[in-house]
Amino acid sequence: MTITKGNNVVIGSNVEFGSNISIGNNVVIHSNTIISDNVIIMDNAVIGKIPTRAKSSILPKVKELPGCIIGSGVTVGTSSIIYVNAIINKNVFVADLATIRERVLIGENTIVGRGVAVENDCEIGDYCKLETNSYITAYSKLENHVFIAPGVITSNDNYMGRDKKRYNHFKGITVKSGGRIGANATILPGITVFEDGAVAAGSVVTKDVEKETIVLGSPARVIRRVPDSQLLKNQ
Amino acid sequence: MTITKGNNVVIGSNVEFGSNISIGNNVVIHSNTIISDNVIIMDNAVIGKIPTRAKSSILPKVKELPGCIIGSGVTVGTSSIIYVNAIINKNVFVADLATIRERVLIGENTIVGRGVAVENDCEIGDYCKLETNSYITAYSKLENHVFIAPGVITSNDNYMGRDKKRYNHFKGITVKSGGRIGANATILPGITVFEDGAVAAGSVVTKDVEKETIVLGSPARVIRRVPDSQLLKNQ
Amino acid sequence: MTITKGNNVVIGSNVEFGSNISIGNNVVIHSNTIISDNVIIMDNAVIGKIPTRAKSSILPKVKELPGCIIGSGVTVGTSSIIYVNAIINKNVFVADLATIRERVLIGENTIVGRGVAVENDCEIGDYCKLETNSYITAYSKLENHVFIAPGVITSNDNYMGRDKKRYNHFKGITVKSGGRIGANATILPGITVFEDGAVAAGSVVTKDVEKETIVLGSPARVIRRVPDSQLLKNQ
Repeated sequence: MTITKGNNVVIGSNVEFGSNISIGNNVVIHSNTIISDNVIIMDNAVIGKIPTRAKSSILPKVKELPGCIIGSGVTVGTSSIIYVNAIINKNVFVADLATIRERVLIGENTIVGRGVAVENDCEIGDYCKLETNSYITAYSKLENHVFIAPGVITSNDNYMGRDKKRYNHFKGITVKSGGRIGANATILPGITVFEDGAVAAGSVVTKDVEKETIVLGSPARVIRRVPDSQLLKNQ
Repeated sequence: MTITKGNNVVIGSNVEFGSNISIGNNVVIHSNTIISDNVIIMDNAVIGKIPTRAKSSILPKVKELPGCIIGSGVTVGTSSIIYVNAIINKNVFVADLATIRERVLIGENTIVGRGVAVENDCEIGDYCKLETNSYITAYSKLENHVFIAPGVITSNDNYMGRDKKRYNHFKGITVKSGGRIGANATILPGITVFEDGAVAAGSVVTKDVEKETIVLGSPARVIRRVPDSQLLKNQ
Repeated sequence: MTITKGNNVVIGSNVEFGSNISIGNNVVIHSNTIISDNVIIMDNAVIGKIPTRAKSSILPKVKELPGCIIGSGVTVGTSSIIYVNAIINKNVFVADLATIRERVLIGENTIVGRGVAVENDCEIGDYCKLETNSYITAYSKLENHVFIAPGVITSNDNYMGRDKKRYNHFKGITVKSGGRIGANATILPGITVFEDGAVAAGSVVTKDVEKETIVLGSPARVIRRVPDSQLLKNQ
């Protein structure tokens, strides 16, 4: 077990370490975290953060959650924050200033870009790319090989914070295997992008996106099929 | 007076503390800050930051400003930054990586989401929600119960940095009580959203939004009245 | 040589300092960085960060890069991150939570706003303003006096991560002298905004923007000429 550590590192109780681990300066690793082999944690990162509720939050009370698990070969970027009960599978790359909340699973070899926020209760597949400053709303599910371009904004509350009915209708987005969303697109609550579906940059998506279809505009409409050369099976 | 403190905490001169306060690791609290009872400050937060001017800034020179005031029951998230002369009223929840500038008032029970930036000289009411990565431009005023969805961008300079006339026309946005702005919407300088007015996701708002009215599109146009079940008085 | 330093500052090997330098708390300055005279570095900033590759990254392997150079009179904001081999010219102001990647040049007197990300291999001119949360994709070039409003998203991959052909077609954006891009606009890969060209807020730009012309909409179309009072030569 070899661990190199920078200055001012704070490590809570009951943290487990594998071997060949590199920890930067000012890193905070909270209690019960598991850090596997070959992990790199960069300066100022905070891992295993316990969520606090706003007094006015609509979310249920927080129970004691299991520790955060960082898989082998993972990199955690500078000033990124990973919450307790997140599972980060092997070879994931988390860039700088990203946030990954509690009860989130990030699949193998996925890239979580700079400034990305993955909210609570999301499941992200393998080999996904979540690019800079994209936002994945709570209760979303992305399958494998999903591409989310920079600045994509998703939402999960069609009632914009009003009407008690909304508590039964919170719904994140679903992106099936190979689905892709272009830069700065807006995805409304509960939308599904089916296999290899694609959303053009800047679009506002108000209806599901069918398999292997490209949509564009505000509201987004079908414009054509995804070129064969861009289908997942042809990569 | 009970204060629990993490490692590497830096506290300036003349900081006042109430009781039952929890301070994380690597937190910096600058001079003259007032921290009230029952406050939680998470890892890496910086409170009471003194603004520095760019040499090429158009803003007036900074005078010595009064300390930052953190009200009772406030939570300040990981790596968030609150400037000197900000007043954060009781039970406000500031999530991670948010920035609140000088001469800003945040009203009671408001939530300032992850990555939100509230620029200088803004006034935010009580029970507002500013969601993830939304941006409140300088000189804006939000009344009570205002909802700002993820990724909303506001602006205050119709001249885009040109023409000396602009110095007389900087104008933030105004959102009256109960106004709501949907995900990734763009709000032009000087716009007012009147009481219970609502902007659909992805819209570009170039005209004021009338009371209890929903606007949509680019440029945004009136599409219908806000449903009774979503009016503030019916919550 | 006078340097004032906060607590918990970490300084690597072979760092060169000029005189009259102010360094905040928890700052990390990595090896081989050059800090010129009259520089202010605020709390939690990380300077000279060495990039790490995701195991699944498409980028070429990182060679040893020359140190980061911070010019005289530069300010680096709280929790900002500047990579190795970035050159920040004199009097640049970097606000809080910004990221400037490797092989980037930032010209004199430019302002890099709060939360801005400038990706690798970009060249930014003098007297530019990159406002809050704007995103400059890799391989972009901005000339002098360019204005990028809050929330602007740029992109460089028309193939959205598919088709090997894309490796030959990555192309950032180009903004010629005096070009301006409005709030929350989306700029597609390879677009050029010519001298004094302007993009209205919320637009999606799919074609080059001609000199002294304003475009608006999704897709953006020419609406009129830039008013004489806003041309760069008339400031």
